[in-house]
Amino acid sequence: MTQNKLKKVKAFAPASVANVACGFDVLGFAISGPGDFVEAEFSDTPGVTIEAILNDDGRLPLDPEQNTAGKAILALLEESGVKRGISIRIEKKMPLGSGLGSSASSAVAAVVAVNELIGNPYEKKDLLPFALQGEMVASGTPHADNISASLLGGFILVRSHNPPDVVSLPVPDKLMAVVIHPHIEINTKSTRLILRKSVPLSKAVEQWGNVGAFVAGLYSGDYGLISRSLYDDIIEPSRSILIPGFGRMKQAAMDQGALGFSISGAGPSVFALCDSKETAKKIGESAGKILEETELGYDIYISEINKEGSVVISKEEE
Amino acid sequence: MTQNKLKKVKAFAPASVANVACGFDVLGFAISGPGDFVEAEFSDTPGVTIEAILNDDGRLPLDPEQNTAGKAILALLEESGVKRGISIRIEKKMPLGSGLGSSASSAVAAVVAVNELIGNPYEKKDLLPFALQGEMVASGTPHADNISASLLGGFILVRSHNPPDVVSLPVPDKLMAVVIHPHIEINTKSTRLILRKSVPLSKAVEQWGNVGAFVAGLYSGDYGLISRSLYDDIIEPSRSILIPGFGRMKQAAMDQGALGFSISGAGPSVFALCDSKETAKKIGESAGKILEETELGYDIYISEINKEGSVVISKEEE
Repeated sequence: MTQNKLKKVKAFAPASVANVACGFDVLGFAISGPGDFVEAEFSDTPGVTIEAILNDDGRLPLDPEQNTAGKAILALLEESGVKRGISIRIEKKMPLGSGLGSSASSAVAAVVAVNELIGNPYEKKDLLPFALQGEMVASGTPHADNISASLLGGFILVRSHNPPDVVSLPVPDKLMAVVIHPHIEINTKSTRLILRKSVPLSKAVEQWGNVGAFVAGLYSGDYGLISRSLYDDIIEPSRSILIPGFGRMKQAAMDQGALGFSISGAGPSVFALCDSKETAKKIGESAGKILEETELGYDIYISEINKEGSVVISKEEE
Repeated sequence: MTQNKLKKVKAFAPASVANVACGFDVLGFAISGPGDFVEAEFSDTPGVTIEAILNDDGRLPLDPEQNTAGKAILALLEESGVKRGISIRIEKKMPLGSGLGSSASSAVAAVVAVNELIGNPYEKKDLLPFALQGEMVASGTPHADNISASLLGGFILVRSHNPPDVVSLPVPDKLMAVVIHPHIEINTKSTRLILRKSVPLSKAVEQWGNVGAFVAGLYSGDYGLISRSLYDDIIEPSRSILIPGFGRMKQAAMDQGALGFSISGAGPSVFALCDSKETAKKIGESAGKILEETELGYDIYISEINKEGSVVISKEEE
């Protein structure tokens, strides 16, 4: 036990791709590179104080009740019975509103840092409900697929949202992700509104066949099966309308050998999965060329599936 | 190669449970015990002749174009280019219209027997499309979950119906099935009519989370996860109305330790999965007691998951 011996902890939580094609609201994975840092220390001020948020252009609230990281920590402290004040600094190393789980990363990094600071009363997987409560304040609906992918790393399946029941899935060795973030903003609430509230039974059956097959593909390392099941005829047709160049980027990615291509979260980011770094680079280049025809800036992240998830990166003792 | 050396082959294809809870139209498994035998031999009469059907109470058509086994063989012969006449005898060792894939078993046993007779031009898994064509004449819609479970054995997932894309899933060692067949008849077409043509998106999401988790549970041998994911809030609520004692049998099965309980196919058969023979017996007894309060007869099958599927059981050389 390290209870009460630390004075400062810094944690990192990676960006994540949710709504993975057939797995709307249930499948997510973490990527390497972008993510959020949260540094937490004990403070004489009771409750949670957010001292600073870096790289958010002043857009995120400093009130801990309204802030995803602040609210997540408050939930953790309440449940664990810790009465000491905590102050945090949030450093965003990923774009907001990009469809890469920005609020999830903040909530996860916050609870991972504070859990370590207060002596690790919880195992990593048990931090999920606190991070979910935090994310609720940002997005209204908790995205357990983003939260659990960022927390645990790898590929995750959300069997149930309430209560959360999350399954860590195996990641085949060669699996690579390409994430393309065009610099436009899509309001998540409006992308929810665009969705029909009901689905034809025949399409729903097709979708759950594909989710089951995708899970089987991950377990068996069958890239062909993974590819055939990365298909979404329910959400993607509506939401892709809002993403510039979606159809052309997808076609180009598939032509380059992508296993599949779809929307990350509610967009505007899109992702491809593939089975080699070389293919990943080609997919990124082809998407870049298409976006350069627009006046939008963009980021491209090429990454293995991040199996580690959130990590404590530094600690200072009292 | 044994081409043209055999004169008679007898094959067996087991009964199967389809629409496994969350896996409506996509998940099936084979059981041991009930099933259909088909004996096939070369004949001087061109085409396919159905000499006899035993134990069908005269209900199944002898016209090969209208008979599921006959039609499946015609499809197989056409594709393989074999011109010789074939005559068959069908022996049903399972109830018709029970929700246990009776027509699927006939179609599968037929193509397995004839494939062997004509020198095995196809591997077992490649017989699926022929059996599907046969089953089409019986039920209007092909049940690839019944057909592929009966053909291949074990647990199967139908990723896509057209073209058929079927995944064999692993079967955890302790998994046992209890199948209860109350002696009433439910017309499959009317059970299809009872289904709503669309599904609320939220329930569809829940269902595909459960299908993914069920597949993960089979791969990881996690009986708890299997149990939590054996849930169907889409089809079961409507169809179970037609099954006498459904609610009480389900409650009793869960009280005895079942992992899950739902409708087999379109009913009237129901099934439970559990993790020991002892529990299986208790589940069977509790269902029997409930059905004895009605005036219905019933059968109860207690079985491991049948991993073998269809088999050639005897051959005679020319």
